[in-house]
Amino acid sequence: MNIAVLGTGTVGRTLAGKLSELGHDVVIGTRDPEATLARTEADAMGNPPYAEWQADHPAVRLAPFAEAAASGELVINATGGGGSLDALSLAGAENLAGKVLLDVSNPLDFSQGFPPSLFVKDTDSLAEQIQRAVPAARVVKSLNTMTAAVMVDPARVGAGDHSVFVSGNDPEAKRTVVSLLEDLGHTDVIDLGDLPTARGVEMYLPLWLRMMGAVGTPFFNIKVVR
Amino acid sequence: MNIAVLGTGTVGRTLAGKLSELGHDVVIGTRDPEATLARTEADAMGNPPYAEWQADHPAVRLAPFAEAAASGELVINATGGGGSLDALSLAGAENLAGKVLLDVSNPLDFSQGFPPSLFVKDTDSLAEQIQRAVPAARVVKSLNTMTAAVMVDPARVGAGDHSVFVSGNDPEAKRTVVSLLEDLGHTDVIDLGDLPTARGVEMYLPLWLRMMGAVGTPFFNIKVVR
Repeated sequence: MNIAVLGTGTVGRTLAGKLSELGHDVVIGTRDPEATLARTEADAMGNPPYAEWQADHPAVRLAPFAEAAASGELVINATGGGGSLDALSLAGAENLAGKVLLDVSNPLDFSQGFPPSLFVKDTDSLAEQIQRAVPAARVVKSLNTMTAAVMVDPARVGAGDHSVFVSGNDPEAKRTVVSLLEDLGHTDVIDLGDLPTARGVEMYLPLWLRMMGAVGTPFFNIKVVR
Repeated sequence: MNIAVLGTGTVGRTLAGKLSELGHDVVIGTRDPEATLARTEADAMGNPPYAEWQADHPAVRLAPFAEAAASGELVINATGGGGSLDALSLAGAENLAGKVLLDVSNPLDFSQGFPPSLFVKDTDSLAEQIQRAVPAARVVKSLNTMTAAVMVDPARVGAGDHSVFVSGNDPEAKRTVVSLLEDLGHTDVIDLGDLPTARGVEMYLPLWLRMMGAVGTPFFNIKVVR
C-alpha cells in the first residue's frame, strides 16, 4: 500500500521505517524537505538529524506535506499535536479526501513545562478537530497510547500481551487500520466506537506520563484485563 | 483498624462491607442517617435501599458524616465526586486532621448526560481540591480506576493480574493505603508520586467509560505491562 507519514520526529520515523520494512511504499511528509535534510543538529527531543535516518532508510522518500499526502492511499498524522492542524492544512484537504487518515498524535501543551497539559480535552478532542478540519477524510484515532517503539513492535513489552484502541466514524476505515495494527503485531485491538471516543484515549496521556515516571521507562503498555 | 467510609452508594457499601469482613471496625458516614434509613426506593443508580444493605451488615454502623469521621483512624471518601467537598465539610476538618484520607471518588459531571465530563481536570484534580479543603488530612488517591466490585475483589477479573495506583504527598499515608490494598488482594500497586499525579488517574475515567462500553462490562481493569 502507498502510505504517507506526516511528521519527521521519532513517531514518524519509527512508523515509516517499520511500514517500509513490511513492504509498503512510504513517503514521509514535512513542511520543507530541503530544510529538514539540511539540519545537522539533534532536534528538541534529542533525535539525530533526519538526514542520518534518511540515509539508513533509502526506500523511504521525503516530500512536502501535500506531495506526500497526495501519494498515500492511507495517511498517518504523526506530527506533534500542536502542529497537526497546520500540517494537515498544508497537506491539503483535496489530497486527503476519501482517504483513511490515521491520527496517532496527542494534544500535548508543553508551554508550562513538564508534565504537559492538554490543549483540547473532555468535550472535544484533537481527532475531532482534525475531522472537522478535513471533513472528507476518514479519521481513525489509534496508537497514541504508547511510545513509538511499542507501536511498531508490541512484542517488545510483555510478549505483546497488551491492548490498543481504535476510534472512528467510518467502519471500513477502522477495518483498514485494524488490519495494519495486526500486521504490526497487535493482538488485542479494542474498537471504542465513534470518533468522540478519542477523547478517552487522548485524556489517558496524563496518566501515561505519570506511569512512565513510576515505572522508569516509556517501554510499557496497558492490557485491558477482563 | 477503625475505618470511616463516607458515602452510602455502591462504592461506600462495597468498601464498607469488605473492610468489615476483613475485621475492621467500620462506620459509614452519611448526611442524615434517619433519612438514609427511611428511603424505600432504589437510588438513582438502581441500588436497593440502604436499609436493606444495612440489615445484611449489622456489624457496620451508620452515623452522620462528622461522627463517622471522628471515629475513623482512616477515612475513605466514597461519596460521588460532585458532593465530596460538601461531605468533607460536614465531616469537619477537625475530625480529619492528621488522618489518612483515602479518596476513591471521581470528578464526574453528568449534567450533560452520558458519558459524563470532568468538572476538574488537567491542571488540577479533585484529590488536590480535597487536600486544599482539608490541609491537615493526609490525602491519598487510589482505587478510582476500577468498579467497586473489583476494588474489593481483584481476583474477580483476570485472576487479579492487573494494576492499581496510589498518589499522595505523605509517604507514610501511602504506605498505610498500600497495605490496605494488599489486604484487599491487589498485587501490583504502582506509586505514581505526589498528589498532583491524581490528575492522571482522574483523567483516565473518560477512557474507562469507553472501555466499559467496548468490553460490555464494568468488570475489567488495566494491567501495566512492562
